[in-house]
Amino acid sequence: MIVIIKPETTEERIGEIVKHIENAGVQAHVSRGTDRTVIGIIGQAEPTLSEHLRQLKGVENVIKISKSYKLASRDFHPDDTIIDIKGVKIGGDNLVIMGGPCAVESPDQIDEIARLVKAAGGQVLRGGAFKPRTGPYSFQGVGVEGLKMMADAGKKHDLLTITEVMTPEYVDVCAEYADILQVGTRNMQNFDLLRKLGTIKTPVLLKRGFSATYDEFLNAAEYILAGGNPNVMLCERGIRTFEQYTRNTLDLTAIPVLQQLSHLPVISDPSHGTGRRELVEPMSKASVAAGANGLIVEMHTDPDNSMTGDGVQSLFPDQFAALLKDLEKLAALVGKRFDTEKASAEDFATWKI
Amino acid sequence: MIVIIKPETTEERIGEIVKHIENAGVQAHVSRGTDRTVIGIIGQAEPTLSEHLRQLKGVENVIKISKSYKLASRDFHPDDTIIDIKGVKIGGDNLVIMGGPCAVESPDQIDEIARLVKAAGGQVLRGGAFKPRTGPYSFQGVGVEGLKMMADAGKKHDLLTITEVMTPEYVDVCAEYADILQVGTRNMQNFDLLRKLGTIKTPVLLKRGFSATYDEFLNAAEYILAGGNPNVMLCERGIRTFEQYTRNTLDLTAIPVLQQLSHLPVISDPSHGTGRRELVEPMSKASVAAGANGLIVEMHTDPDNSMTGDGVQSLFPDQFAALLKDLEKLAALVGKRFDTEKASAEDFATWKI
Amino acid sequence: MIVIIKPETTEERIGEIVKHIENAGVQAHVSRGTDRTVIGIIGQAEPTLSEHLRQLKGVENVIKISKSYKLASRDFHPDDTIIDIKGVKIGGDNLVIMGGPCAVESPDQIDEIARLVKAAGGQVLRGGAFKPRTGPYSFQGVGVEGLKMMADAGKKHDLLTITEVMTPEYVDVCAEYADILQVGTRNMQNFDLLRKLGTIKTPVLLKRGFSATYDEFLNAAEYILAGGNPNVMLCERGIRTFEQYTRNTLDLTAIPVLQQLSHLPVISDPSHGTGRRELVEPMSKASVAAGANGLIVEMHTDPDNSMTGDGVQSLFPDQFAALLKDLEKLAALVGKRFDTEKASAEDFATWKI
Amino acid sequence: MIVIIKPETTEERIGEIVKHIENAGVQAHVSRGTDRTVIGIIGQAEPTLSEHLRQLKGVENVIKISKSYKLASRDFHPDDTIIDIKGVKIGGDNLVIMGGPCAVESPDQIDEIARLVKAAGGQVLRGGAFKPRTGPYSFQGVGVEGLKMMADAGKKHDLLTITEVMTPEYVDVCAEYADILQVGTRNMQNFDLLRKLGTIKTPVLLKRGFSATYDEFLNAAEYILAGGNPNVMLCERGIRTFEQYTRNTLDLTAIPVLQQLSHLPVISDPSHGTGRRELVEPMSKASVAAGANGLIVEMHTDPDNSMTGDGVQSLFPDQFAALLKDLEKLAALVGKRFDTEKASAEDFATWKI
Repeated sequence: MIVIIKPETTEERIGEIVKHIENAGVQAHVSRGTDRTVIGIIGQAEPTLSEHLRQLKGVENVIKISKSYKLASRDFHPDDTIIDIKGVKIGGDNLVIMGGPCAVESPDQIDEIARLVKAAGGQVLRGGAFKPRTGPYSFQGVGVEGLKMMADAGKKHDLLTITEVMTPEYVDVCAEYADILQVGTRNMQNFDLLRKLGTIKTPVLLKRGFSATYDEFLNAAEYILAGGNPNVMLCERGIRTFEQYTRNTLDLTAIPVLQQLSHLPVISDPSHGTGRRELVEPMSKASVAAGANGLIVEMHTDPDNSMTGDGVQSLFPDQFAALLKDLEKLAALVGKRFDTEKASAEDFATWKI
Repeated sequence: MIVIIKPETTEERIGEIVKHIENAGVQAHVSRGTDRTVIGIIGQAEPTLSEHLRQLKGVENVIKISKSYKLASRDFHPDDTIIDIKGVKIGGDNLVIMGGPCAVESPDQIDEIARLVKAAGGQVLRGGAFKPRTGPYSFQGVGVEGLKMMADAGKKHDLLTITEVMTPEYVDVCAEYADILQVGTRNMQNFDLLRKLGTIKTPVLLKRGFSATYDEFLNAAEYILAGGNPNVMLCERGIRTFEQYTRNTLDLTAIPVLQQLSHLPVISDPSHGTGRRELVEPMSKASVAAGANGLIVEMHTDPDNSMTGDGVQSLFPDQFAALLKDLEKLAALVGKRFDTEKASAEDFATWKI
Repeated sequence: MIVIIKPETTEERIGEIVKHIENAGVQAHVSRGTDRTVIGIIGQAEPTLSEHLRQLKGVENVIKISKSYKLASRDFHPDDTIIDIKGVKIGGDNLVIMGGPCAVESPDQIDEIARLVKAAGGQVLRGGAFKPRTGPYSFQGVGVEGLKMMADAGKKHDLLTITEVMTPEYVDVCAEYADILQVGTRNMQNFDLLRKLGTIKTPVLLKRGFSATYDEFLNAAEYILAGGNPNVMLCERGIRTFEQYTRNTLDLTAIPVLQQLSHLPVISDPSHGTGRRELVEPMSKASVAAGANGLIVEMHTDPDNSMTGDGVQSLFPDQFAALLKDLEKLAALVGKRFDTEKASAEDFATWKI
Repeated sequence: MIVIIKPETTEERIGEIVKHIENAGVQAHVSRGTDRTVIGIIGQAEPTLSEHLRQLKGVENVIKISKSYKLASRDFHPDDTIIDIKGVKIGGDNLVIMGGPCAVESPDQIDEIARLVKAAGGQVLRGGAFKPRTGPYSFQGVGVEGLKMMADAGKKHDLLTITEVMTPEYVDVCAEYADILQVGTRNMQNFDLLRKLGTIKTPVLLKRGFSATYDEFLNAAEYILAGGNPNVMLCERGIRTFEQYTRNTLDLTAIPVLQQLSHLPVISDPSHGTGRRELVEPMSKASVAAGANGLIVEMHTDPDNSMTGDGVQSLFPDQFAALLKDLEKLAALVGKRFDTEKASAEDFATWKI
């Protein structure tokens, strides 16, 4: 940590600032330049020291050199985290594909989609039972019943399941039915929810807040890890920028950056990241080429009539299957394992666009 | 609502889209231009219709002309909402000043600050008992004890109190002790929290999400209003932009815009909006000149040693008092009522910077 | 300047980096912390040194403590720059009002508007002869003829004039006719234009690029100052953010920030900053309350029929006059001089909305 | 075009607005909904009509359905533009690789880099002779001499050359020496420069302004096309967002979007797009997977000592060669032609990191 002193601060005041630092149990190393005096801090400071120093009179800025997160950092955990869920490995050189509808609508809908996800080569079924919606008058999901429908479909078709949990009270019931719990973009800094997720062992897919920096994103993951749950995946799902042609701006650079800063698996969501069906295929491929450990992709058998209005970004089943075929070849080129051998073209014959 | 049809969509498909519209109980009015066909929708559609239509094959775009929120809109409530809390009026031509520390730290700290807020002419005491923090290792607040300390200080010095509530479970206990509940920027779209706040009558100050559009902000307010709680204030507290010199970019244009779109009072937060003490005074004045119905300002008796690190944006007590003196004159110029007659210079003699 | 070394860099490499620094004629001061080694640089380095060091192997980051601009910085010029143009003073505690149409359209139009600007108390007539337009098919201005019309109107009504110059070739002809040259937002980093403006003495109003940081903005001003022209005004005109309800997001915090960092006058443009007529009045007041040294405001006698389409953000003449009356009182409150004594209500009788 | 009328506009005023529309030679089609009246415009309107209507009293908004650009639009030119320069084809299913230093520094430097670009399989040599720099004290390029050095190197090693042109006066001399002229991000809306480039036939690589929307980007291309030069390539080079870990946020979604909206080739610049060497490889691959028609990549033989400080984002020669080998396989997977057969590993033996 480096403390930059304001010009014209008296020696007496600098002495007081040094005392503040030493009181925190670390050493202060004062350097006087031609323009500015700076104080280097040597030793392991409390995470809150920088906040404290920043507010002292005479301090212009405090620059943290060490990261504010520890457990999420690759510095302290050089090897990739690989999460093994019932034999499906997520992280390292495995590519995992999660597919399914925005919202669970009925037992038949989710069962048929599960069949198609499996047939195409996917390993995880996605589907929302509780839906976070911008306005209070939109469809809010089918609730706990949806969790059960999805669990049944997953079991029948031998798929893991992932669903979003929006509030601490629902963590236990969601964990009872789903294999992976998703934290949505609007909840990335819902700290009570993160803390609750730290108390269980169910793997968590944490979506990046649509305006969160990498540092804030990794600090949010740190909440879960610090609570005792090591099974966290990071998910890039598009950030908010001035460009409004697409729903969000998918920040694919986040993939290699997060993999450098952290050991956690990084998943990409090209469906929410673009908000347009025709962009899902190229951005899925780009995600894998950038090194993603997995994708979460919306697929629906009847996108015209999805209940959430997200059909506009859902692939048709045959598009989903064709994409996975292509990803299989691409994965091999970038050193990832993924195969779609179980997929057969016939399964999709009835689902042509 | 206007539906824009993709070029080269067949007449048959347009007919199907019209049928979708008519099934929703409204009329479709097709217009064929040289480049494009558009369908105007006449009648009161369900709020979800636009989402549904947007995903239909052949639809390029759906443009909503009516707003998605109703209760928050000035169209349906032309007069200003004025919230009366124990005789303090918020909204209309009243100017309300909320002051206090980022976090409640001890009974003495909050009592002394309350005395100074009152002496300067402020009407509301602010202070956090539960603190939302980016990283898990930062000071997280003193909890329920802090609520009690603040309630005592408010009562003793005849001030209303406002505190942040972060999760639905804590709404009841916070409402027991505080006069106004604050929803923080990271929770603006914590829909379960908003719904819970709709079930009580305690006034709510809803902070704008740091990347929320005006429309999303008003939709978040709509959740509370739709639940049955009409006492909502909107608070602009800075948005996230590319400029990183200040902590956030205070969007003062939000003040007149929100007052045009909505009848709810609009409060400005120049402390979080700038993150720098020396900018709080000019931006407070600018907020009042832009028409704000109130300000929420951080003030601390010992900013060097605040526990949250937010001392850097807190005014010293005498700065706070001087600011309120200036605002009194400014308020008169822009048609707002505010007086600091009870404030006396002596109170601040010991608090010079 | 502080150089942060990557972890696990060898001592040998650190020695090479130190040699690079010493070769630049400054001293290197190495500090070894528990996590990182940092090198402080003592002495007056070339501005390019930080760029050079940043690219060395083993260097993680270079943090500049001194600013990259000198002439624009208040550190080297503590007093406010006051630009005196034919007796009109811009900067310090003077408030200057520039008003007029987006584009000069005809001699009669500009003459009548000049009369009204003067009558309302304004000191400068604005008007574009060359218009920068997003698409090639929009109205591009009337050219040199427009410069002459504006010069005539200014002379007749005793107003200074300001017009935009878009390319180095036109600097001389624009300077022949106008008192102040404006650099538009899209040209803030047109470095050849800036260099050319540095070779003359005509005052320049430099608009902030719509995505320029404060640092980039002041570096752009530095180009003009470094060329030898000390007469530069900075103009905040709104930045690009995710919010699209307004044309831009007027960043009023820029006013006090730029005044702290620099000695140059800071002007606010609420017309382009908001893009909506009804927001010009509150944001003009907020600008003055925030400490602006002046405003540049669009006013048109027939906004319905302006040739550029910017009528939507132009005030009607009587709105402009009423605004200036209000600003007179507001200016006094914030320590600025401005009077509208010459303005008479009758002049505006025929221009009611 | 659709004109949305403000609520409570009188019938008389609507009649006047209709007259404005009909005076422009197109038809107005009034539809009265329950909330709003809208006017559809039928016929081919002047591009300026929307701007004109937007400013009329009683008009709330004007929504353009047709695009404001024509020549750049795929609607009017369904086939891909393929630019053939001395036998090198850019566009369609060809992948073009442009490599070289940020700035030309000396004849030996550019000659050696040219040899390496060619050896690795690249087709175009990049290098700046005139450098746009944020501050006036940075290295500004070697000027016309640099153009000559680059032309010699290109000729000797059988490579096309590309260089940046910053101002209209230099267009002719740059076009004399270089095969492709680049317009930098800060000049995307330097309209005089664009107009000048429209008068020649030399191919132009137009970089997206770092805060330009797709629509503004295509309108900038339209300026060149409308002037008569059909040889335009679009280049995504990163946009400015709140995320500051990387120099810019590379918006790869721009690649498929621009290819849908336009027929022009789309090139990606992962060097400026990320600003960090270690991110260039994954983002190059992601660009090709997303469908890019080419890449422009910085490579330097001595990045530690580059004169512009951009060494930090330059690949070492062997990294560049290894990347091109990988891109060859990737290109085949996404239907693009690119081969590196002429590249031989020995050429890079001396250039290992």
